[in-house]
Amino acid sequence: MDIQSYLGRKKQIVDKALDSLVLPAKTFPSSVFEAMRYSLFAGGKRVRPILAIAAAEAIGARTAGLLPIAGSLELIHTYSLIHDDLPAMDDDDFRRGRPTCHRAYGEAIAILAGDGLLNRAFEVLSDPGRLKSVTPTRLIAIIKEISTASGVFGMVGGQVVDMESEGKDIDVATLEYIHTHKTGALIRASVRVGALYAKAGKRQLRALTRYGELVGLAFQIADDILDITGKQEVIGKDVGSDIRKGKKTFPGLYGLEESRRRAVEVVDGAILALNGFDKKADPLRELAKYIVNRVN
Amino acid sequence: MDIQSYLGRKKQIVDKALDSLVLPAKTFPSSVFEAMRYSLFAGGKRVRPILAIAAAEAIGARTAGLLPIAGSLELIHTYSLIHDDLPAMDDDDFRRGRPTCHRAYGEAIAILAGDGLLNRAFEVLSDPGRLKSVTPTRLIAIIKEISTASGVFGMVGGQVVDMESEGKDIDVATLEYIHTHKTGALIRASVRVGALYAKAGKRQLRALTRYGELVGLAFQIADDILDITGKQEVIGKDVGSDIRKGKKTFPGLYGLEESRRRAVEVVDGAILALNGFDKKADPLRELAKYIVNRVN
Repeated sequence: MDIQSYLGRKKQIVDKALDSLVLPAKTFPSSVFEAMRYSLFAGGKRVRPILAIAAAEAIGARTAGLLPIAGSLELIHTYSLIHDDLPAMDDDDFRRGRPTCHRAYGEAIAILAGDGLLNRAFEVLSDPGRLKSVTPTRLIAIIKEISTASGVFGMVGGQVVDMESEGKDIDVATLEYIHTHKTGALIRASVRVGALYAKAGKRQLRALTRYGELVGLAFQIADDILDITGKQEVIGKDVGSDIRKGKKTFPGLYGLEESRRRAVEVVDGAILALNGFDKKADPLRELAKYIVNRVN
Repeated sequence: MDIQSYLGRKKQIVDKALDSLVLPAKTFPSSVFEAMRYSLFAGGKRVRPILAIAAAEAIGARTAGLLPIAGSLELIHTYSLIHDDLPAMDDDDFRRGRPTCHRAYGEAIAILAGDGLLNRAFEVLSDPGRLKSVTPTRLIAIIKEISTASGVFGMVGGQVVDMESEGKDIDVATLEYIHTHKTGALIRASVRVGALYAKAGKRQLRALTRYGELVGLAFQIADDILDITGKQEVIGKDVGSDIRKGKKTFPGLYGLEESRRRAVEVVDGAILALNGFDKKADPLRELAKYIVNRVN
């Protein structure tokens, strides 16, 4: 299969769904709706929604009904980017090659646009009209999965430790905490949410969870490597910005070559976790390879 | 009935529930858990949880099973206070007589404590283990009610317009938008959530919704009046801070006497809305009177 064309097709479907989840930019009060759309349509690759879709497909489910749920993952991812970029946090001026939300709309609207996107995700997830193919019990489990990944035991916790570790010497366990929480938790949840939607059995869910954890880790290693070796136009932010901020990274702890080796090893593990699945899981397999190919 | 003692009893029950909803301050990473608890236990009156409980009681429901839901309303209220106080927003140094969250823990942790509380509310609301007495369908309706009141069509929208109106001449419609969204939406939702939990019939829900809207309005008028006439130790923030910031208020638009008259009128309307209820709705009636008595 051609993963590039798969990603392109799915991105189009997800973008269309996202457009219907957030309201037109002219909705009152327009500043916050504009800011929400500005960050949501800044050229994201839609990795999390596509992982959810691919996980549901791996089990053989039709995925049209999953789109609002997949979209809510991207709303939450975008909220976290907006808040992480704020001056009091990582203080980033550019994201995906464009001014960050607070540079474009001011800090107050950026905070509120983030809050708006986070709340919007739960509005969408609790809208039975949008989610007719999901039973309420299953939907509650999906909301629990997403809110836990997004909150203090997931992304929020990861961002706290990431910030508090800047410029300090940290051990491997702390780096692991940051990565599994800041990026890993929502990626893992994305795969699990697709699986829950598709009524995965216990063993299927366990295998996909393992896949999600390893793909999240590979994704983070790749991001850290790209921060050093990538071109600004490819990664959309300043090359070397992690290092300048004293952020702890895989290459910082293990060196570049060892980090590359680990990325390959982790992706192999993710693919191995899918052993019990037939070719319907090929998009998941190719997605994992695609992540590591970006850095080799 | 003695409303003061009712409020005291209920506050104790709610505080105990809240203590079990947010984790111990020493949970890792402790800074954000400390900050969440700092703002959550800063002496709030628990108006929203108590309104939810009183609404459920008015219908005759037992309310022990409602406590996690009532508590989540306070988590969301506290998140909104933390974010509204930030330097980029209302830039308040004191809240309830203590330094605001960002003054005590720094801006980054305050943003994340707010995010943490908001996410935590939805973690609690999607935890079937905590909510055994609520059917999944009803729980989805409750999550929809709360997320909508909290998001861009509720509190977030209200805060956007409030900020954008500072120092400007605004019309009555804009003031009404700010109040119905910034404060009114979550108060209305609190009453409705109690009603939904208690399996209110259509007419009961309609009456309680009307009550919630009017009580929210009375609450806002009273707050505006107290900003002018209150003592700092009573209201816990600087007297006259709304006026200094160029915030639009009821007394600013209508004068103090007319605002007092309106508060009484609105409370009378709220009590009238409860005409179809028996004495089990007395706490709701007394709550409405209590709000307006604070300013007379």
